[in-house]
Amino acid sequence: MPSVIALDAMGSDKAPKPEIEGALQAARHHGTRVLLVGPQDRLKAELARYPGARRLPVEIVHASEVITMEDKVEAIRGKRDSSIRVGLRLVREGRAAGFVTAGNTGAAMATAKVVLGALPGVDRPALAAAFPTVLNTAAVLLDVGANVDCTPQNLEQFAVMGDIYCRSIFGVKKPRVGLLSIGEEESKGNDLTREAFQLLKQLPIQFIGNVEGRDLYNGHVDVIVADGFVGNVALKTSEGVAKLVRTVLKETLKSTITRQVGAYLSRNAFSDFKKRLDHTEYGGAPLLGVRGVCIITHGSSNTNAIKNAIRVAAEFAEGRVNETIERELAGLRPLAGATP
Amino acid sequence: MPSVIALDAMGSDKAPKPEIEGALQAARHHGTRVLLVGPQDRLKAELARYPGARRLPVEIVHASEVITMEDKVEAIRGKRDSSIRVGLRLVREGRAAGFVTAGNTGAAMATAKVVLGALPGVDRPALAAAFPTVLNTAAVLLDVGANVDCTPQNLEQFAVMGDIYCRSIFGVKKPRVGLLSIGEEESKGNDLTREAFQLLKQLPIQFIGNVEGRDLYNGHVDVIVADGFVGNVALKTSEGVAKLVRTVLKETLKSTITRQVGAYLSRNAFSDFKKRLDHTEYGGAPLLGVRGVCIITHGSSNTNAIKNAIRVAAEFAEGRVNETIERELAGLRPLAGATP
Repeated sequence: MPSVIALDAMGSDKAPKPEIEGALQAARHHGTRVLLVGPQDRLKAELARYPGARRLPVEIVHASEVITMEDKVEAIRGKRDSSIRVGLRLVREGRAAGFVTAGNTGAAMATAKVVLGALPGVDRPALAAAFPTVLNTAAVLLDVGANVDCTPQNLEQFAVMGDIYCRSIFGVKKPRVGLLSIGEEESKGNDLTREAFQLLKQLPIQFIGNVEGRDLYNGHVDVIVADGFVGNVALKTSEGVAKLVRTVLKETLKSTITRQVGAYLSRNAFSDFKKRLDHTEYGGAPLLGVRGVCIITHGSSNTNAIKNAIRVAAEFAEGRVNETIERELAGLRPLAGATP
Repeated sequence: MPSVIALDAMGSDKAPKPEIEGALQAARHHGTRVLLVGPQDRLKAELARYPGARRLPVEIVHASEVITMEDKVEAIRGKRDSSIRVGLRLVREGRAAGFVTAGNTGAAMATAKVVLGALPGVDRPALAAAFPTVLNTAAVLLDVGANVDCTPQNLEQFAVMGDIYCRSIFGVKKPRVGLLSIGEEESKGNDLTREAFQLLKQLPIQFIGNVEGRDLYNGHVDVIVADGFVGNVALKTSEGVAKLVRTVLKETLKSTITRQVGAYLSRNAFSDFKKRLDHTEYGGAPLLGVRGVCIITHGSSNTNAIKNAIRVAAEFAEGRVNETIERELAGLRPLAGATP
């Protein structure tokens, strides 16, 4: 039986269009049943524009409120009927196998922790981001922002969860797991990473030691473990560099006619280039370690990004990733500080 | 009187060629006197290949040992006559106004701290890296690796030193100083940044609050303050993204004949592009807060990078940056934990 995925219809910058189209594509191409969560009347009207929609397994679940990107913690807490909260409740109640949102990341993480709770053995859920490498493989970085001050034990759990996610979703048999630090030697790093190093090397995973910022994209490591502050800085710095490169390249290619002709002849290269570095192919960032499936995608998500996030949510549920996380964490030595 | 700058002749990956040529260019174009530090016989033979060299103010100072990029702490300590140590001694003894090296960064920082010591009021010297932004301005990030576990007071001192460096070397009248964090609000960040935020907002600088990884390159901030671990991760992640982009772009542009023709026509755009993102223009990373001038450049430095680093070292000395740091730190409220 195909999975049922709840989708926040009001999350992305251009909501609900990418959400509705992404839901329809996921239903059409992967047979996924999608519950579109948001204001019923508006969604009904929007959905009516797509002639084939009625024959596809896409339904609307009403949620009267919407959390904006600017909403502060208090506002988020006050919106009891937000599309994020209603969608996550569908997962908790077993009516959906997973939830996808392109909305406010902080709100989605906080609400998921409250509504779904953590898996047994997990102290802190972690947000995992996937991106392309030079070798055309995927690499996973976690945590990218769920936890700012971490203990070595938190990083240990991130390593286990990242390893399982990489195996389950990207099909890497024995992921190479690295600890993000500032030098390769065991002695390099800060207090946190040096202690975490000792824990990670005892885990039944392929721990390859410390890796550096430049290793994120060179394909030499599959899973990179960091505390949420460092992971978030690395991720957003990458976005900054990518934007710098795009802007400068565009400016220099436009500055003379010859260059413009050259750029025109090479245009397929630029679209291939864009495709190869396209993060929308990776289906968003799962919040690993919560009881249920919760995938958070970028606010700028397009139809393709939403479709892929729905696919990943379904694969995540069908692959029983959470059961594996629970089992493997229980199999480790009793974890210091873990809630049993 | 022109400054005398001591240059580690054996630091870069292709040493001593870029060093010798960089020294000759600095002497020719800026009138700087350069002391080339390294094995006398070898440098003498190399220098003899450049016909005009004898008329330029470039001299050799003998150092029998060389620290390699692979040398561990013990090896570094053991090499008492290394080109790095001898060069720094020239600064301490007042025979040179500054020192430049493209060698082992860790060794250079550690040796500078020992040989030169810290300026009054500075607890921890910090390495400052400069890079280009979308708006074609320079931004300064510090610390990028001198200190892994920092206190809020350390970050406060980094802010003051970064501000002065940006004013003195890049001529920015009132630099916008930001604290690298993971959200703009004052409440966002980890324990360290939240405490540092409170200190930075009391400083007589233009503190613009928290900035994120993506702000490093958007030109909205001139000086970005971070602990050495986070700063190093941000810097090396940037290198990783830049390499990813270069590799993928090259591959996609070469894959068909049409694209190759297009790339050929646009070739000047690519060289402009390279130039605009060229870090060698910025003259390396100064170790701010030591008693003396110490500039560390990338191991891959070419002639231009060395020439610019020598220029920056001279400007640093002539601009009396260290005197300003000392004076402005003394002018602050008595700093908690600062060595008087």
